[in-house]
Amino acid sequence: MTTQAVPQTRQDIDQVFEQVKNWGRWGAEDERGALNFITPAVRQRAVATVQDGVTVSCALPLNTTPSAENAMPVTHLMVRGGDIPDATGSADYIAVAPHGMAHTHLDALCHIFYRGQMYNGFPAMAVTSAGATRNAITAGEQGISSRGVLLDIPSLRGLDWLEPGEPIHPADLDAAEERQGVRVEEGDILLVRTGRHRRNAAAGPSNGREVIAGLHASCLPWLHERRIAVLGCDGISDVLPSRIEGVGLPIHLVIIPAMGVHLIDNAQLDDLADACTERRRWSFLLTLAPLRLQRGTASLVNPIALF
Amino acid sequence: MTTQAVPQTRQDIDQVFEQVKNWGRWGAEDERGALNFITPAVRQRAVATVQDGVTVSCALPLNTTPSAENAMPVTHLMVRGGDIPDATGSADYIAVAPHGMAHTHLDALCHIFYRGQMYNGFPAMAVTSAGATRNAITAGEQGISSRGVLLDIPSLRGLDWLEPGEPIHPADLDAAEERQGVRVEEGDILLVRTGRHRRNAAAGPSNGREVIAGLHASCLPWLHERRIAVLGCDGISDVLPSRIEGVGLPIHLVIIPAMGVHLIDNAQLDDLADACTERRRWSFLLTLAPLRLQRGTASLVNPIALF
Amino acid sequence: MTTQAVPQTRQDIDQVFEQVKNWGRWGAEDERGALNFITPAVRQRAVATVQDGVTVSCALPLNTTPSAENAMPVTHLMVRGGDIPDATGSADYIAVAPHGMAHTHLDALCHIFYRGQMYNGFPAMAVTSAGATRNAITAGEQGISSRGVLLDIPSLRGLDWLEPGEPIHPADLDAAEERQGVRVEEGDILLVRTGRHRRNAAAGPSNGREVIAGLHASCLPWLHERRIAVLGCDGISDVLPSRIEGVGLPIHLVIIPAMGVHLIDNAQLDDLADACTERRRWSFLLTLAPLRLQRGTASLVNPIALF
Amino acid sequence: MTTQAVPQTRQDIDQVFEQVKNWGRWGAEDERGALNFITPAVRQRAVATVQDGVTVSCALPLNTTPSAENAMPVTHLMVRGGDIPDATGSADYIAVAPHGMAHTHLDALCHIFYRGQMYNGFPAMAVTSAGATRNAITAGEQGISSRGVLLDIPSLRGLDWLEPGEPIHPADLDAAEERQGVRVEEGDILLVRTGRHRRNAAAGPSNGREVIAGLHASCLPWLHERRIAVLGCDGISDVLPSRIEGVGLPIHLVIIPAMGVHLIDNAQLDDLADACTERRRWSFLLTLAPLRLQRGTASLVNPIALF
Repeated sequence: MTTQAVPQTRQDIDQVFEQVKNWGRWGAEDERGALNFITPAVRQRAVATVQDGVTVSCALPLNTTPSAENAMPVTHLMVRGGDIPDATGSADYIAVAPHGMAHTHLDALCHIFYRGQMYNGFPAMAVTSAGATRNAITAGEQGISSRGVLLDIPSLRGLDWLEPGEPIHPADLDAAEERQGVRVEEGDILLVRTGRHRRNAAAGPSNGREVIAGLHASCLPWLHERRIAVLGCDGISDVLPSRIEGVGLPIHLVIIPAMGVHLIDNAQLDDLADACTERRRWSFLLTLAPLRLQRGTASLVNPIALF
Repeated sequence: MTTQAVPQTRQDIDQVFEQVKNWGRWGAEDERGALNFITPAVRQRAVATVQDGVTVSCALPLNTTPSAENAMPVTHLMVRGGDIPDATGSADYIAVAPHGMAHTHLDALCHIFYRGQMYNGFPAMAVTSAGATRNAITAGEQGISSRGVLLDIPSLRGLDWLEPGEPIHPADLDAAEERQGVRVEEGDILLVRTGRHRRNAAAGPSNGREVIAGLHASCLPWLHERRIAVLGCDGISDVLPSRIEGVGLPIHLVIIPAMGVHLIDNAQLDDLADACTERRRWSFLLTLAPLRLQRGTASLVNPIALF
Repeated sequence: MTTQAVPQTRQDIDQVFEQVKNWGRWGAEDERGALNFITPAVRQRAVATVQDGVTVSCALPLNTTPSAENAMPVTHLMVRGGDIPDATGSADYIAVAPHGMAHTHLDALCHIFYRGQMYNGFPAMAVTSAGATRNAITAGEQGISSRGVLLDIPSLRGLDWLEPGEPIHPADLDAAEERQGVRVEEGDILLVRTGRHRRNAAAGPSNGREVIAGLHASCLPWLHERRIAVLGCDGISDVLPSRIEGVGLPIHLVIIPAMGVHLIDNAQLDDLADACTERRRWSFLLTLAPLRLQRGTASLVNPIALF
Repeated sequence: MTTQAVPQTRQDIDQVFEQVKNWGRWGAEDERGALNFITPAVRQRAVATVQDGVTVSCALPLNTTPSAENAMPVTHLMVRGGDIPDATGSADYIAVAPHGMAHTHLDALCHIFYRGQMYNGFPAMAVTSAGATRNAITAGEQGISSRGVLLDIPSLRGLDWLEPGEPIHPADLDAAEERQGVRVEEGDILLVRTGRHRRNAAAGPSNGREVIAGLHASCLPWLHERRIAVLGCDGISDVLPSRIEGVGLPIHLVIIPAMGVHLIDNAQLDDLADACTERRRWSFLLTLAPLRLQRGTASLVNPIALF
């Protein structure tokens, strides 16, 4: 298989893994991975994209309703309401397993193991019942602010959304860049829109755990070459089914442990796409503020774009 | 009592409440309160403060250890670790009641009731066991980005930190502005540092539920006049004891329901103060990304300052 | 409508409600309802049924897997495992909303409201975000031990189980008593078996939230006359659909608030039926040990039959 | 050291461990341990003790209030109350880490590891982030009903309670048997009362995590010889401090992994002692109904005594 060949088997994915591997790139003890691409200069360039002073959320509302896609809904309960005699205030409680397909979250680099190892070669056994002693979500705890770039694939194809299961190939990414007049560069947070939530609102629920639009594994070398810092998608970046024999989630399996790229899963990119289209501008300052969860494997996030 | 008089009783606080009340200011149905001060122009001014491209977190690490100050610690548990045969990845779970004195969180406008009412006159009974149907945390769900201004009170006094229970008066705020060469303006997110966490790390734990440094109620008119959008503190903004007979938390009791100001409680401002001191610059772009919790009364936040 | 007529409408249920109402029967302040039928003499009679010294659980295993029937699965997570260096022990954590269709639980008398009231006329508003100040699950906190009687309806009909949606009528209860040679008496805990779980294991999952075998509303007067203390079922006692226009769960709606009868929902009665059949004996000492949850609306239970 | 010598060091405890070890006694695959002592004949004998038909709870109310002893309080929150427009019922939610010093719970045999092993030689590594694949709490899921025997040590000494830190020695157990006219026999559930909760209610809170009355390690051979099935205490069975150099909880460390005895920690035995004293009868039918938590390390329990 060469870079251009289309991966089809577990062996092909193994080869891609080696090809795009960033282990050691930032030192043997590094746990930040591709976040290292975000330098002060990159952030300054990101700030320079701001013109209007308008913010847009890239998160779904927290979802407390069980469904096929939401096997572990957010628990939101009241601690105190205004219904108690002489109530002086209210308080509440949430419980959440962030790695669900209905929650906008950031995957830590400990989230995926590849043959017993994590990003930078740390052993899977470093993640115990006490949490992740390596590659925890705290890699991003000082905030992840960089230039965000949205590639809007349905718009490229003249559609409102991709149908569940539709794959996105490297040529689509190139074409979207061309159409939008933007280029994904080192340190960018790349957001790929499939229109999943707009589709589900209009056409009824799909089960993204089985069929979902997203990137085909052949995009991995493209993503590696562009040196993105973070990848986000309104799906889970991976297309399902993956079309790779024996590998369910090849993007996850390679981009997290090999490349050290944090993933934003289940973003909400419809409002963002509208804001971009209106401005004919596809880059912005994007800020992720993961919770400082020591030893955590993920964080709920509400990514904020500033135009 | 005039504006200049020092409030001492529940009656005085009632008077201040009326004096600084913003009910109706942004319409009868408004639930955003002082967030309305953050206009696109205000955000543009905030962006203009960025020079270095460096980010600093203003949050504490999530605290899972019970203590006098942390009566409801964050529960962080693993769903799956690398200790399971053939583990392919890890996942975890958090449960939290964000309104604790050990958690950096943003109070929604439904958090405090004043004589059976909330901000803008909505009844406390609108907050039931089903959550807040008015003044929920979703007021800020599109992101709260504005100019942040840090007033560093211990530095003003030549100290490393204020001792628990030390009050801050309006004259201190004026003096800090003067010393730092900065002025709090309309739409700013004001952060007031007491040095609480640095003190506790050096001098041992205190119980902030009983004694804590913070703003005296006499600061309320000052805060109102400056038209701040959000107030944050490394304590809980209020000084304890409050020195107001019959009112435990006068800042909370007035600033949230009367002024409609969201509070950031228990921020971590020591790193921020160091970054400011180093640059001799006390303003920056600050981004709050509250979780989109429908009907929620608060959100954990990790406020990110961008210099 | 007379006792013999079959209820078909909301109005009929209203009439049944009045007919079987136990309000005031044990005093105006009573919160124990039909548990009052369990006297020391009743317990002594129950103990007299024991012969073999064999125990049988009437509970399902706690269910942590989401499904149509299990919208709020039990969360079971580890606090500490043996995977941590020098582990000295293990600990875990559960979170549960007991009122789910996959959890064996005991409903408190505050669980159901009828026109704004609860058992014994207490107002629904006595149940706030702070819990139930009336009719809480603590009514049974000293333990509910009485004679249990199993009526096995599938066996009566020569079947392994009832199909989802099959109703049970008073004549079935009479016939089961006759076939089994047992009579339900004052203070008994009546368990009605439909074979739900054995059916689902063999025939695949059904969605009991929509269709489930159980008692038709016409059984209410029968249950009232027999002065049972508690009613349990391997379903939710109610048949679904209810065949009552405008009332989804007439058994729940009447037996809890009118009669003051605690319900055991989603028991597992297959092992019990086997034990009974083997012994040709359909009564036993049954012990319920609800957790002492102050102001609680339910408790998970593992009812233990002792033969 | 002989059986009669008083253990003082880690080495002494190692010797006791070997001396009282039940590994292999019920087969190499056994996970029930001393529960095997409870035979049908034992249960029949237990039933024969019942005379009055009165039940008594041996559990504390679930404790939701944080304190030094209650580092992980029970979370009890409402899902739905009567405060919602047209409420038809109420529901709630609990979350709990049962192994706390304020919760009446049953320890599973996987709870304590001894040099990397559990009861019957199973490896500690069998308890992972996915739970206990060996020695889970389900060992008791069919119910634990046996004769309960209360030894009331404060009454023996003519006191209302033992002071925190007071040790109980084998001679005390013998003397209590003699005074009460009862003898602990094979298969019994032994409950040892220290009066902890009555003391704390009267004299103010103590911190049982540091100082608590309980059994000295020298009781282990006594407990082994009597072939008890379960041990319960209103403390945690262990006295603290333990008076054993280098071993904090020698009773836990030996009785669970060596003897295979389930422990009831933090029972409430004051009501039980009153009931016994009144009747001059110290044995009764005791029923434990642990939740059927697959792979669980503990269960909250409400042990019910039937006189």
